[in-house]
Parts: sequence; C-alpha cells; structure tokens
Amino acid sequence: VSAETLARLYRDYIACLNRQDWTELGRFVHRQVTHNERLLGLEGYRQMLVDDYAAIPDLRFTVDWLVSEPPFVAARLAFTCTPKGRFLDLPVHGRTISFAEHVFYRWEEDRIVEVRSILDKAAVERQL
Amino acid sequence: VSAETLARLYRDYIACLNRQDWTELGRFVHRQVTHNERLLGLEGYRQMLVDDYAAIPDLRFTVDWLVSEPPFVAARLAFTCTPKGRFLDLPVHGRTISFAEHVFYRWEEDRIVEVRSILDKAAVERQL
Repeated sequence: VSAETLARLYRDYIACLNRQDWTELGRFVHRQVTHNERLLGLEGYRQMLVDDYAAIPDLRFTVDWLVSEPPFVAARLAFTCTPKGRFLDLPVHGRTISFAEHVFYRWEEDRIVEVRSILDKAAVERQL
Repeated sequence: VSAETLARLYRDYIACLNRQDWTELGRFVHRQVTHNERLLGLEGYRQMLVDDYAAIPDLRFTVDWLVSEPPFVAARLAFTCTPKGRFLDLPVHGRTISFAEHVFYRWEEDRIVEVRSILDKAAVERQL
C-alpha cells in the first residue's frame, strides 16, 4: 500500500465517520483494533463512536494535517462542536468549543489496527 | 528530501535536544519557526527548551512512533521525568510522571518551520 493510497483510504474512513455510516466501519477498522492500548475490537470501536455522537450531536471530523507513511498515518484533526454535558471531565455543558486531536494509526493492510490519540484538553480548559 | 532522509534528520534533531546542544539547534530549526501558531523564532525556540530543562532537569526525549512524509514529520514522543514545580498547570512538584506528546512538524527544506504539539495532560492528571 503506497502513502497516497493509505491517505486516500484514511480520508474515506473520516468521511464514513462523518456520515455515521456504522455498517461501513468494518471496511476501515480491524476486528482486533486497540485504542490507546485498550482492546476495543470493531464492535467496541463502533460503540465508542456512537457514544461520541450521542454526547456531541454536532460532532464533525475535519482533517487539518495528514502524514502518511505505510503502515502509519498521523492526523491532526480539528473540531468545533457542542458537547451536551461534561467532556474530557470538564463542565462544557452546551458551550461550543474548538480543539484539536493528534492521532496516530497503525494499519494492517487496509485496516486500522492500533490507534494512539491525544485530545487538546488544555485548549478546552482555556475556553471555559 | 526523501521520507528516510527527513526521518534521519528528525532523529538527529532529537539527539541534539537530548545533548542540550543549543549551538547546533540552528542546523534543524528555522529562524522563523512557529510553535502552536506562536512565532518564536530560533532564539525563542531555544529559550523554550532551556526553560523546559530548567523546570524538568531529567527531561529526555524518546521517539515512540515516527511518521515521515515530506515536508511533514509526525512523532509520538514518550517521557518519564520529574518536573520540579507545576507542569501543564498541574501540581506535579517532584513526582516522576510518564506521558506522551503527539507533535507535527512542517519542514522547509532541512529545517523545522512549524510545530503543532499536544501533551497528554489527562495522563498526567491520572498520576497525581
């Protein structure tokens, strides 16, 4: 898989999230996927995303920076959204906030098998 | 510059930081470097690092994941270190903590000109 192909596949994955197209998620995510060293598996990963959208109805993933070197992709994702309740253990409660996520993915062939993510909690704190 | 060359250059940059070899920093860092959208310039960048080592005498940069696609490098850096006072606005005060930094670099030729960094503040909070 080339860097270009993996980058395109990644953008398709992000589009899938933004459509909340959970039936398609298995095209991009491995059955044994881990997220920050927790084994979620495909079903657990889907549930994490469903829970994210329940907590943040206007959630939308925007790729700001994208770096692709198979089998790795790194992305800086930008968010402007309105969490209903607490978010990152902070009392956001319906404020609209902007923050970034810096996330690394390891792919096994054409599926994401390992995710390491950091959300910019300090940026959210500065907006409260 | 190939992905391999940029990755090697990046590892040389990290070795330079770990030696605290501030006379060499200009080999890797652009005179007009920005850090999280603040224009620091080479001197401001050097001062930031000098201040980091003053606050964290046992600071050491370890590359955990490295993704190189010119003109970008993304790195997951791992730290185990002992900040003397407050760190990320948290009362660390001499505890040894472990956390990651997810950091993106844009290079102009062979020098870093733009840095976007997120530190895992939530991980530090969990250790206090």
